[in-house]
Amino acid sequence: MFFASDNSGPVHPQVLSALGAANDGYAMGYGDDPLTRQVQDRIRGIFAAPDAAVYLVATGTAANALALATLCQPYQTVFCSPVAHIHEDECNAPEFYTGGAKLTLVPGGDKMTADALAATIARENTRGVHGPQRGPVSITQVTERGSVYTLEELRALTAVARDHDLPCHLDGARFANALVRLGCAPADMSWRAGIDVLSFGGTKNGLLGVEAVIFFDPEKAWEFELRRKRGGHLFSKGRYLAAQMKAYLEDDLWLTSARSANDACTRLARGLRSAGAEFAHAPDANMIFAALPRAVHRRLHDAGAVYHLWDGALDGADPHEMLTARFVCDWSISDAQIDQFLSVLQA
Amino acid sequence: MFFASDNSGPVHPQVLSALGAANDGYAMGYGDDPLTRQVQDRIRGIFAAPDAAVYLVATGTAANALALATLCQPYQTVFCSPVAHIHEDECNAPEFYTGGAKLTLVPGGDKMTADALAATIARENTRGVHGPQRGPVSITQVTERGSVYTLEELRALTAVARDHDLPCHLDGARFANALVRLGCAPADMSWRAGIDVLSFGGTKNGLLGVEAVIFFDPEKAWEFELRRKRGGHLFSKGRYLAAQMKAYLEDDLWLTSARSANDACTRLARGLRSAGAEFAHAPDANMIFAALPRAVHRRLHDAGAVYHLWDGALDGADPHEMLTARFVCDWSISDAQIDQFLSVLQA
Amino acid sequence: MFFASDNSGPVHPQVLSALGAANDGYAMGYGDDPLTRQVQDRIRGIFAAPDAAVYLVATGTAANALALATLCQPYQTVFCSPVAHIHEDECNAPEFYTGGAKLTLVPGGDKMTADALAATIARENTRGVHGPQRGPVSITQVTERGSVYTLEELRALTAVARDHDLPCHLDGARFANALVRLGCAPADMSWRAGIDVLSFGGTKNGLLGVEAVIFFDPEKAWEFELRRKRGGHLFSKGRYLAAQMKAYLEDDLWLTSARSANDACTRLARGLRSAGAEFAHAPDANMIFAALPRAVHRRLHDAGAVYHLWDGALDGADPHEMLTARFVCDWSISDAQIDQFLSVLQA
Amino acid sequence: MFFASDNSGPVHPQVLSALGAANDGYAMGYGDDPLTRQVQDRIRGIFAAPDAAVYLVATGTAANALALATLCQPYQTVFCSPVAHIHEDECNAPEFYTGGAKLTLVPGGDKMTADALAATIARENTRGVHGPQRGPVSITQVTERGSVYTLEELRALTAVARDHDLPCHLDGARFANALVRLGCAPADMSWRAGIDVLSFGGTKNGLLGVEAVIFFDPEKAWEFELRRKRGGHLFSKGRYLAAQMKAYLEDDLWLTSARSANDACTRLARGLRSAGAEFAHAPDANMIFAALPRAVHRRLHDAGAVYHLWDGALDGADPHEMLTARFVCDWSISDAQIDQFLSVLQA
Repeated sequence: MFFASDNSGPVHPQVLSALGAANDGYAMGYGDDPLTRQVQDRIRGIFAAPDAAVYLVATGTAANALALATLCQPYQTVFCSPVAHIHEDECNAPEFYTGGAKLTLVPGGDKMTADALAATIARENTRGVHGPQRGPVSITQVTERGSVYTLEELRALTAVARDHDLPCHLDGARFANALVRLGCAPADMSWRAGIDVLSFGGTKNGLLGVEAVIFFDPEKAWEFELRRKRGGHLFSKGRYLAAQMKAYLEDDLWLTSARSANDACTRLARGLRSAGAEFAHAPDANMIFAALPRAVHRRLHDAGAVYHLWDGALDGADPHEMLTARFVCDWSISDAQIDQFLSVLQA
Repeated sequence: MFFASDNSGPVHPQVLSALGAANDGYAMGYGDDPLTRQVQDRIRGIFAAPDAAVYLVATGTAANALALATLCQPYQTVFCSPVAHIHEDECNAPEFYTGGAKLTLVPGGDKMTADALAATIARENTRGVHGPQRGPVSITQVTERGSVYTLEELRALTAVARDHDLPCHLDGARFANALVRLGCAPADMSWRAGIDVLSFGGTKNGLLGVEAVIFFDPEKAWEFELRRKRGGHLFSKGRYLAAQMKAYLEDDLWLTSARSANDACTRLARGLRSAGAEFAHAPDANMIFAALPRAVHRRLHDAGAVYHLWDGALDGADPHEMLTARFVCDWSISDAQIDQFLSVLQA
Repeated sequence: MFFASDNSGPVHPQVLSALGAANDGYAMGYGDDPLTRQVQDRIRGIFAAPDAAVYLVATGTAANALALATLCQPYQTVFCSPVAHIHEDECNAPEFYTGGAKLTLVPGGDKMTADALAATIARENTRGVHGPQRGPVSITQVTERGSVYTLEELRALTAVARDHDLPCHLDGARFANALVRLGCAPADMSWRAGIDVLSFGGTKNGLLGVEAVIFFDPEKAWEFELRRKRGGHLFSKGRYLAAQMKAYLEDDLWLTSARSANDACTRLARGLRSAGAEFAHAPDANMIFAALPRAVHRRLHDAGAVYHLWDGALDGADPHEMLTARFVCDWSISDAQIDQFLSVLQA
Repeated sequence: MFFASDNSGPVHPQVLSALGAANDGYAMGYGDDPLTRQVQDRIRGIFAAPDAAVYLVATGTAANALALATLCQPYQTVFCSPVAHIHEDECNAPEFYTGGAKLTLVPGGDKMTADALAATIARENTRGVHGPQRGPVSITQVTERGSVYTLEELRALTAVARDHDLPCHLDGARFANALVRLGCAPADMSWRAGIDVLSFGGTKNGLLGVEAVIFFDPEKAWEFELRRKRGGHLFSKGRYLAAQMKAYLEDDLWLTSARSANDACTRLARGLRSAGAEFAHAPDANMIFAALPRAVHRRLHDAGAVYHLWDGALDGADPHEMLTARFVCDWSISDAQIDQFLSVLQA
């Protein structure tokens, strides 16, 4: 009954096996090994992007901050959602890596709308040299609230950016979960939708810790390599990052794992709704925010369920007060575990 | 015949096994897991430092740059050797993480002398507000040229720093190799020798990629945690870093591995010397810089030996020109591999 | 008919004379001169703050950014109004000087309310190491929309900050204009109201370019000096900054000048209102935002009036559309100039 | 008898007068005024550089750090002399403004030689992504030890830089003093000698505080403007910077003042030599380092002479010990003052 985060589950066994398979003799360090090159080619193939520059790093924050630093000058501002991971959950990493750029929040919910983005961009940079200059647009897919942008929505956002000659970054920590939801090709949800640089997540979907950063236009590739090194994110033993990513992409493991997580969340959501939980809409991917009375949270907690309350605290006067919680399903969760949780819920 | 670097060898099998053992069910993320806590306690025990704050990161550059950023203000300067890794091999990571501090090079060879350090510190900071202010001293043990400071030498350096109230950092990427050389306790080569913060390496000695940063005085622990997060170096799946480090410290694996590497280097050095290679002194640890005629390098290279020439190039007019090469032995190299290399050398 | 900004008017003649008086022979550089010491003492006296550390810089952005950098760690966030100068008009200077701290905007108008500030602070920093940590509160007095906080309002804001142990910065680019409005002592509107560091403006009130930064607690004085130097804001010929500030404070010139500007704005506002301009409330100080039909702006513009339209453009289809403009009165503006403007307005 | 620095003397009366002349009515802020435009045109004319982008800032550190930040990426290194102002006297401002670039010191004296520069550049950047990348070369003219590069020497340095496609910056805090020494055209000592960006000093030669930054290629002009603003170095009342610089350039005031200072230093040097002071060669410009016995320094000091000892201290056991001092002559020093000093010296 563990719904705290999709980074709390185990690593997929095929990924661990791949580490063992890679552990044979010597290999040149710092990404200059055959496994890394294979993975780069594989990603170029999957994304139908033969010229793309592909890099591996170990954390999502590194992927995002390094990508943004390569796209954004220190006197510019990044446009993003008020709930974006880069704004709320990276302890100023984007500001650090860009050398002091700003993040401008596009008013609204977790999903930015093209209209709100256009209005925000229009308002920024009307002060000449005095204000921050317009910089990249950063979009999160799956959003931090569990929504998935449609391709139309993505394209509308990047069209606004293109109108102002601004590059687009996609934080795809849960790229696979969104992709199986939309059922489209990786290229459709990235460069064909106007994305210039993608943080392509693996850690939340069964890897130990690997994210790829994909520059569909390789012009800034060398700059990225230097920024990665100076950030301390160039691994000497690159083959062990590559091995994970290779296993991830083999036999569609990444898609199968994401589908499992999404399906589990659908099952969970159905049960939550039957039990009277309140939420705006069914989950798009593997994460749902649902409100339950405090007393119910207490009962679930006492039964061993693990998840984060999003507002309010378990301890409080009113047992009937509705408290929102975040539930995330990872690739490994079983129907049995969900049903066990639901049985406690419905008790 | 692979002597390119100790980060090019395989991961120790016990370390890989430990990853499998850790891969059981759910664990809270970001270091809030039992395995991480066990490892922190274990390191405190090994270093006889019950109050130390202990953190795991994945690269040596991250360990060094984060440690220095916590010790050094942006208007200060770090004192180090001209061949220090933080100066030559981190693409300005210390300057980046500190927010623009300077590195002041202490004249001399790979080992700083207390006299040279004292003279350099004395010269710095004689200009009041105009010059950079004195900041931490950073020492590398094993040095980048393969030497090992004696405890007396270390204590003499830190005494100079203490005279000016400057904190001391030790870049211990090859801490284990130095320790088995000196045959002393970990505490003797760290806090008892006046070291305040230690980058305690594991990657070059058989891990996939884990270094510990140890603050013997935990006062700045929380600041370090924030800097690590904002640098993108806080892993969500911390248990897989902890598992590596735990295996490393179990049954003295770290010491056994380091001893193997050092012994291999001794064997190699003996053979090199017999074959007429020139080097100043026998290796202290697992790395040696030795000069051979270009023609000999050519022959070794053609036979498949892999290592870095330090000056000059394989292609060149004069076959008798002496070219210095760096040879590094990792934990996994066998006597047979060394003997094969020596037989080519002596052919 | 020049209402573009209070930094567009001339320097007060007494200030220019003071430069001449200071221009006698040699003086040690970098603030180590008698005039600078006199001014520092004078400011300590005026603010009834005998221990305060006082520094002179040449621009308001330098004053604010250096003050904030001294108060704020790079992993923290500054709380301020959405229309604060530090957010909108300094091209990321605070982010630059702090090494990448964030600015968190307190929802509302130009004046922050204590409730909104408390709610914003409460929301920030609920994510442990993941989010930015709470940092200083920065208040602007006179606000960027021309309002003046009452002492009660100021004290309520700093009380909220104190509840969380956060330091308070006051951007007092128009400190004198607010002070004469409130009719209180300088100490009342600064340290007695809970302000820790004050940017005390002079440039907008008749100087060539001088602002004082006042640390009421001198603990971080040396750090500020180093940050000022490394920012390139330590003047070699400090006496010419000091001379300006000295003249400013002599015979209450600063207060007289501010009173002139405020009175002029009151006269202007009365005339604007009579002529049908719309604005929420009479001006508190020397700046007013008023809406007039486009056709009227056109007429004023053609007659030579100079001021900034805040939304919309002079060229546009609808002559009746109401466009808001910002009118700022400086110390030098005469009743005749205002009356001339009003006569065009009322024509 | 004041030889402490050329920034300790008075402002030239014509410069002060120009401030008064500029103080007439309103002018748009932030450099958007006619006086600033006139000065920019004047500098373009003087330098025979019709396309140059010209900016005014108030301090030499700002000029240098902003120029370098525009030329240098944070993962690069600046090549300069070990005694360069940017290295020794700016409290890490270049590191701060560049976002953490390094300064690589070219071994040798105050003047870099082309050979030493070439060797240093060759050595740097042989480590691919691991080391800092090669960045701009920064040359100081007049050097910090009072030497003046010949045009041949300058061209030889910039030729080395051009071989590696590296831009060249000239720190010309004392540009005028060097120019009158060489007797060449401003263009000869700047862009025709291969300089891309010039810090063109005024403060040390009779201004209150103005330096121009001149980009002979205007491609990065807008970036510079943004960096200047975000550094807090854009003055609102730009006309008062422009007025100083205009007076400086009128009727060759800058050259006349520099010539006076140089001549005074020649007179001083002659007297020092007669009195037995030791120095390697006659001064090239307005600054000389000369060694005298401690007892003589004591006598000069007691008689009221003001200058900096460069090594050793006035108080010391041995009255015969030779201590080097720096003597700088500013534009305003009279023959009488020098002769008075020499009479004390020779007493």
